[in-house]
Amino acid sequence: MKKHNFSAGPSILPASVFEKASQAVLELGNTGLSILEISHRSKEFVAIMEEARALALELSGLTGKGYQALFLHGGASLHFYASALNLLERKGAYIDTGTWSHKALTEAQFVGATSVVASSRENGYRNIPTDFALPLDADYLHITTNNTIYGTEYSHYPEVEIPLVADMSSDIFSKEMPMDKFALIYAGAQKNIGAAGVTLVIVREDILGKVSHKIPTHLNYQVHIKNESMTNTPPTFAVYTCLLTMQWIKEQGGIKVIEERNKEKARILYEEVDRNPLFKGYAESKDRSRMNVVFNLVDETLTDQFNALWTEAGISGIKGHRSVGGYRASIYNAMPIESVQLLVEVMKHFEKTV
Amino acid sequence: MKKHNFSAGPSILPASVFEKASQAVLELGNTGLSILEISHRSKEFVAIMEEARALALELSGLTGKGYQALFLHGGASLHFYASALNLLERKGAYIDTGTWSHKALTEAQFVGATSVVASSRENGYRNIPTDFALPLDADYLHITTNNTIYGTEYSHYPEVEIPLVADMSSDIFSKEMPMDKFALIYAGAQKNIGAAGVTLVIVREDILGKVSHKIPTHLNYQVHIKNESMTNTPPTFAVYTCLLTMQWIKEQGGIKVIEERNKEKARILYEEVDRNPLFKGYAESKDRSRMNVVFNLVDETLTDQFNALWTEAGISGIKGHRSVGGYRASIYNAMPIESVQLLVEVMKHFEKTV
Repeated sequence: MKKHNFSAGPSILPASVFEKASQAVLELGNTGLSILEISHRSKEFVAIMEEARALALELSGLTGKGYQALFLHGGASLHFYASALNLLERKGAYIDTGTWSHKALTEAQFVGATSVVASSRENGYRNIPTDFALPLDADYLHITTNNTIYGTEYSHYPEVEIPLVADMSSDIFSKEMPMDKFALIYAGAQKNIGAAGVTLVIVREDILGKVSHKIPTHLNYQVHIKNESMTNTPPTFAVYTCLLTMQWIKEQGGIKVIEERNKEKARILYEEVDRNPLFKGYAESKDRSRMNVVFNLVDETLTDQFNALWTEAGISGIKGHRSVGGYRASIYNAMPIESVQLLVEVMKHFEKTV
Repeated sequence: MKKHNFSAGPSILPASVFEKASQAVLELGNTGLSILEISHRSKEFVAIMEEARALALELSGLTGKGYQALFLHGGASLHFYASALNLLERKGAYIDTGTWSHKALTEAQFVGATSVVASSRENGYRNIPTDFALPLDADYLHITTNNTIYGTEYSHYPEVEIPLVADMSSDIFSKEMPMDKFALIYAGAQKNIGAAGVTLVIVREDILGKVSHKIPTHLNYQVHIKNESMTNTPPTFAVYTCLLTMQWIKEQGGIKVIEERNKEKARILYEEVDRNPLFKGYAESKDRSRMNVVFNLVDETLTDQFNALWTEAGISGIKGHRSVGGYRASIYNAMPIESVQLLVEVMKHFEKTV
């Protein structure tokens, strides 16, 4: 029986992506070859990469605006370092909204000076800080647009004169965003883009090439742009799943349609968290994430009882991150509203039985 | 119709790997989840990673000998840099046997001083050099055990007192090798290990932690060992294909059996290259690769005629690399002898028709 998968990532992808990807592992189109064995220099794979790069810009509303989309190795974590390596000359400025932005900061410190200009740490990362002052020598400001562990998400973005850099791993393509406010965006694929093992990097070309230190070839975004995202063998299958997922978004009617569904899914789940006296939400209401709904039991002695209920209902992956405990229901683009409704029913049922 | 795929990489994998991987994209075992959506922290995926790491050591004969196997992001190309970053304190010594060893050298130069202690460049990379003198301050000696572009391969390895480092991307698991002579081995998966998008790193732990510079988290092999190859989300599907491929090697009877098949495949193809007056081999006979058989037409005006013949026979991926031209038939572990026999027949038929 298919599980209702609320995992934070790797996470659910559209059923049609699973089906098409599975078929391509046997044979890609009518090529007589598996997607796993086809050369990355073949015309079929070059077409996949080109379409994926173009579609990433199209879905972002950035076509023709001086941006390039790359599908690179490494996971977002490698790009914590790579993004700083490409941009940090004097100082990197960071807004600290939790574990992931802190990790981004840590990797930048291998490159040079950094400054944390705002943090919600003292508040247990329950909100997105809005006040900050940039150092005069800041090369860029880095934010994490959605924070999977604490369940917070930016709804308005900092207005700055320097390049705005964002780790958008967990909310890219989930809603309409003013993408052209950002100079560099990176996102691990394994939430809303595709399979784990590839990172989408979208960069405005004019910000590159300005640091004085040397950048190793495979961490240098200018090199990857020059080589059309094929400097070395790309993670071919993972890139293909990104193309399939982005095609699915377009087929659904685009990001506006996806956003409406995501709003509704988040609304019904938060409504239940707020209504049901057995639960309490973690993040401050104004900064709640539409992607990761984090909540706790008011009475933690009921944990086993609640766990038994949702497990029996075929739900998986809602245990919270160890930093926060409790529950985290990740409801990315591909999560059907029916699964969210089921979780809400289980929560209501739980209320009646205790 | 299934093609006979002689691509240099990504390349053919065993048919059973395609079938099992395709099924797992729909559902992994009885988990109710696709391999693409399952959490890397789930017990099912942790078991996959652990078995893959153990099997890589077992197939290498390195179990219990102080080595660790890691499945990391990046492709071998990122590990040109990472390997130097983890080991280079004073000087990295390199034997230059072609494009890939030269690229490894180039990335090491981003870390520190290097020395090319031997090169077959003047000979068009047709052989493996045997004479070299190591600088007294060399931290390690780096070799590329098989050279896909020029079709050369080491059969004996340098005897040195310092750590021996090898890019084994294209001949690992293809034959019995004295693996314990090596202190660090890295190999992009997409030839004999699995799908593109993951790199196997095998390292003897005692050589790590000896450089004075800082190493960014995701390029630091000690960190990856500590985190059991899960410092960040691994390329989960690619790792799974590695496990399936290594299981297949074991089921076939292990590397000794695979090696016999590879010897025979290479024998019949080189025999035809040497016999057929229309063709000539590229590499010196003594250093010929069993993985990549590189040959040219004696009369290049016959190119279109030969290309038409093998294309019609359902053969793909044998066009040579642009540096050498001609043809390159990559006959990795998963390539059936029947496909090699077919290519030989096409070459014989070609001789009769011109």
